[in-house]
Amino acid sequence: MSPIITAFEQSPDRGKGLSRDVRVRWALEETGQPYEVRLLSFSAMKEPAHRKLQPFGQLPTYEEGDLTLFESGAIVLHIAESHAGLLPEDANARARAITWMFAALNTVEAPVLELITARFLESDKPWSKERLPLIQDRIRHRLHQLSAYMGDAEWLDGAFSAGDLLMASVLLRLRLSGILDEFANLAAYAARAEARPAYQRAFAAQLAVFTSHSSTG
Amino acid sequence: MSPIITAFEQSPDRGKGLSRDVRVRWALEETGQPYEVRLLSFSAMKEPAHRKLQPFGQLPTYEEGDLTLFESGAIVLHIAESHAGLLPEDANARARAITWMFAALNTVEAPVLELITARFLESDKPWSKERLPLIQDRIRHRLHQLSAYMGDAEWLDGAFSAGDLLMASVLLRLRLSGILDEFANLAAYAARAEARPAYQRAFAAQLAVFTSHSSTG
Repeated sequence: MSPIITAFEQSPDRGKGLSRDVRVRWALEETGQPYEVRLLSFSAMKEPAHRKLQPFGQLPTYEEGDLTLFESGAIVLHIAESHAGLLPEDANARARAITWMFAALNTVEAPVLELITARFLESDKPWSKERLPLIQDRIRHRLHQLSAYMGDAEWLDGAFSAGDLLMASVLLRLRLSGILDEFANLAAYAARAEARPAYQRAFAAQLAVFTSHSSTG
Repeated sequence: MSPIITAFEQSPDRGKGLSRDVRVRWALEETGQPYEVRLLSFSAMKEPAHRKLQPFGQLPTYEEGDLTLFESGAIVLHIAESHAGLLPEDANARARAITWMFAALNTVEAPVLELITARFLESDKPWSKERLPLIQDRIRHRLHQLSAYMGDAEWLDGAFSAGDLLMASVLLRLRLSGILDEFANLAAYAARAEARPAYQRAFAAQLAVFTSHSSTG
């Protein structure tokens, strides 16, 4: 039986592919796993039925028989550990790939989330305009470090891994702001990740949800 | 050969046990692993020798023979996967424990980091005082959800796991602010975690570093 993931019925980014279900779709595509999607409205996410699967009322979740998981990082790791294609065979290389998963979500995405929070929850505050450059500089600080580490490497550590999948997903959130393009090697890295057929299929699948729901809405 | 971790030579929290090396010390203690510590000054953290181990210039790192890891979450997971004591045997329970590791670091710690950033990097800004309650409310929102999920359970999902280790570490960062004590079951949960002999040994080890360096400084 195919696993079931949850995704937004109404994509908050209007099909730009930035919501976290795309990370899970991408991991399933990289490992060649079929999956089903259960779409949730914003109100359904807050209801007890979903809270039983996801105590924080977020997306995505992952159901596979008796197992229910949440947190896109944990789901991607579970998929990567259950199927070949996203983690190296060598134990040390595997541990390093997992290090990059955590680095993507905790060290690089942390200031990106601050930027998103500032835009969505504090854009009406008197400090909004003056504070934005501070957050952008904190993001640039991390990207400088990542850029210096990467040089002209194709992927973070040897072959493409779940670490690259999450890092590229985080970087893609910065493209519209223009910050990603300030770092040529990181912009090229994100574009390489995006060009992968598995990413393209994941992106197309989320876009199809948006398109079908916006035409009737 | 014992693994080597890095820790602050001068504890930024003056031995309160909130820096991330404590999470790694705790995991090593829970699994009964001896370890060595290399202390780093703030300036040494920014130097090329450390950047080769940790591209973002942070702590802790973990060296074990040829393997070098960073990101406390990744290091704790590596320790938990290499030794018994921090992850259940059952595959599904194991995946759920890992879900809680990611939930602790990404969903619960994210607003906690915002609070720390606001205090350390923006305390001199004109918006500092007015903005603080907004961040505190975002933390309360997450703790409400976690508190509702936990009820009077002893640990997050069955036996104590690496998920509890990280979640309790995140919650302990909130004790001084008073926010943790607003949630009686979470305060009791953090206190239970803190009372574990392995935590006590990890805490004492970091405190000894602070004490020995402050008496000579």
